[in-house]
Amino acid sequence: MPIITLTTDFGLSDAYVGVMKGVILSIAPRAVIVDLCHEVPAQDVRAAAFALYQATPFFPADAVHLAVVDPGVGSSRRALAVYTDQGTFVAPDNGLLSLVLEGVVRREAVSLTNSEYWLPGVSTTFHGRDIFAPAAAHLANGVPPSHLGSPAGDLVRLQLLKPEVRSPQAVVAHILHIDHFGNLILDVRADRLPHRPVLEIAGRVIGGLSATYADVAPGELVAYVGSTHDLVESAVRNGDAAQVTGADVGAQVLIRSEVT
Amino acid sequence: MPIITLTTDFGLSDAYVGVMKGVILSIAPRAVIVDLCHEVPAQDVRAAAFALYQATPFFPADAVHLAVVDPGVGSSRRALAVYTDQGTFVAPDNGLLSLVLEGVVRREAVSLTNSEYWLPGVSTTFHGRDIFAPAAAHLANGVPPSHLGSPAGDLVRLQLLKPEVRSPQAVVAHILHIDHFGNLILDVRADRLPHRPVLEIAGRVIGGLSATYADVAPGELVAYVGSTHDLVESAVRNGDAAQVTGADVGAQVLIRSEVT
Amino acid sequence: MPIITLTTDFGLSDAYVGVMKGVILSIAPRAVIVDLCHEVPAQDVRAAAFALYQATPFFPADAVHLAVVDPGVGSSRRALAVYTDQGTFVAPDNGLLSLVLEGVVRREAVSLTNSEYWLPGVSTTFHGRDIFAPAAAHLANGVPPSHLGSPAGDLVRLQLLKPEVRSPQAVVAHILHIDHFGNLILDVRADRLPHRPVLEIAGRVIGGLSATYADVAPGELVAYVGSTHDLVESAVRNGDAAQVTGADVGAQVLIRSEVT
Repeated sequence: MPIITLTTDFGLSDAYVGVMKGVILSIAPRAVIVDLCHEVPAQDVRAAAFALYQATPFFPADAVHLAVVDPGVGSSRRALAVYTDQGTFVAPDNGLLSLVLEGVVRREAVSLTNSEYWLPGVSTTFHGRDIFAPAAAHLANGVPPSHLGSPAGDLVRLQLLKPEVRSPQAVVAHILHIDHFGNLILDVRADRLPHRPVLEIAGRVIGGLSATYADVAPGELVAYVGSTHDLVESAVRNGDAAQVTGADVGAQVLIRSEVT
Repeated sequence: MPIITLTTDFGLSDAYVGVMKGVILSIAPRAVIVDLCHEVPAQDVRAAAFALYQATPFFPADAVHLAVVDPGVGSSRRALAVYTDQGTFVAPDNGLLSLVLEGVVRREAVSLTNSEYWLPGVSTTFHGRDIFAPAAAHLANGVPPSHLGSPAGDLVRLQLLKPEVRSPQAVVAHILHIDHFGNLILDVRADRLPHRPVLEIAGRVIGGLSATYADVAPGELVAYVGSTHDLVESAVRNGDAAQVTGADVGAQVLIRSEVT
Repeated sequence: MPIITLTTDFGLSDAYVGVMKGVILSIAPRAVIVDLCHEVPAQDVRAAAFALYQATPFFPADAVHLAVVDPGVGSSRRALAVYTDQGTFVAPDNGLLSLVLEGVVRREAVSLTNSEYWLPGVSTTFHGRDIFAPAAAHLANGVPPSHLGSPAGDLVRLQLLKPEVRSPQAVVAHILHIDHFGNLILDVRADRLPHRPVLEIAGRVIGGLSATYADVAPGELVAYVGSTHDLVESAVRNGDAAQVTGADVGAQVLIRSEVT
């Protein structure tokens, strides 16, 4: 039973996600469909890239990961299937796969040009239903990527992890993602931090990394090695760090060594 | 493995949907359950009718579609199972199936009066759990509709698609649905439009139909043939047309021919 | 095919729930995963306890119910698996199982201390992924609870149903839960009410229990025996009782006998 995961910005107040599942199950009736996230902010390719990065390593390598955040639908942007040693990815060619393709062995990437694998009568505004979902279902059925289209060559890449190492004592990181709890996930891995790090987030100073939330008092800010690829995070214990700091995605976080 | 889809106004902040799935899987352990939408606005039968209309054509014809938006629960409104050439529908008799029964071949409709197929100890407020979910599960198991109750005869019908053709040059359509992106879906199919149509939505004029969003500049209003049954839609490219126009579901949209 | 249900406060705007599903399906590929609720308010153990109480009786007794609302993650709070005649429960030892363990036969409870059944490299902040999800998957695969750790002894219990019977004519109940529709679910069962009960909720008086919503006019407050374990509820027909009354979870509801 092949797994197909879904990541979109379709939200849950319409039946669009259900429509894609109908298409998938009509082609691959035994597929196990798993929702990763459908509340990616509208057209936010970066947020979707992060969701894939967070989740897909925990799936079997034969899973198919379908992601549709597609502001360029109907334009000339390409539709992709990328077959790797850590899963097969189906998505528009807009940078959505930037994070997830880091460190994987890319075996094959095709542009989904073969209309035999599309739904008949493709719309101009819902390629998730008409092109991407059928492609994912056929791949889950074992159709080789090469049947779905022609080799894709270079893909659009976004630079999403870009901490600036200013000196051995200073790194400027950024808020990469704010989660449901208001936890701030930075774009820097713990092993890139200076010795005895002090973080400055929106004017607030956090001295050192703690092991977990419970190491500080309720209501206090804390920094720690997060659960996603060892990226550094900051939270308020039993609270909401985004609300407390007022910081937004993209904000700079200065990390200095206490020892300077 | 039979598919059962679910459409409700139960939201996702309670376990009500999960309860129905427990009931279904207790009766039909091999059923594949697919959520179409649970964020139908409370008691909004029209919105649920649209969700079914949008999604169910993309499922296999042997799927069972269970929809519970049921302001009349506990009153004398009937509970229905309707078996058609395009799926089996289980819902209260309140107009919820109005759109989805258009153009299908209706083979059999029963009122779910046979209490042998209900949960024991039916509540007065949660027939989704006690009557509708068991019915859907038994139908997915292959129980013939006629076992579940007596013939239903005429069903409650709502008139949901009602564009007024005023002349060959002028149609008054309405906003049928506003989706998660703020796109406005009208109640008129593209082939009903006058020649070279000009749309007027909340005082804003859109000249002509475009092929897709990308045909206009970001932030601009655009009209196009949508992905749902060729209904005409209007969107703001990379934006939110509902917000930009202030238009609401039910609002009139005047569509005239440019050539008059 | 074993069922695993999921209840969390992770929300749906991140991929955290999807991550747990990836872990589960990697260990138990044939598991049928059912979402009960992921919009439990952050760190609200009581709300999660209620969701389990509402839903789990409708699942087969061999289902595994995984619940992660875990403000103490990374601290010394224990991780539990509790095997009963009405399902197997996996959760932190923080009172989350208080309601669901009432009236069931508890067969075995273990603390999940055996790291052979954890993911390698357990994080300090996401035990849902690293400890609880693997445990649920192994249990669904038939691993005996005793393999996962040592006997747990007494569990943390919260007193969640605590109506005060002041006299045969007067009970003080509390609002236990407010659902998506704004219906108020009280912590008192119908058979505990005084004869001919009159309820007082936030200054509003409701005389008697009705059979269902439809027994009052639209917009009116009504009380009735609810669908969850016969707990008494109050609603506004086709409206929102929480909004109308301004009452909150925990608020007292005085219930007197009309006959005094």
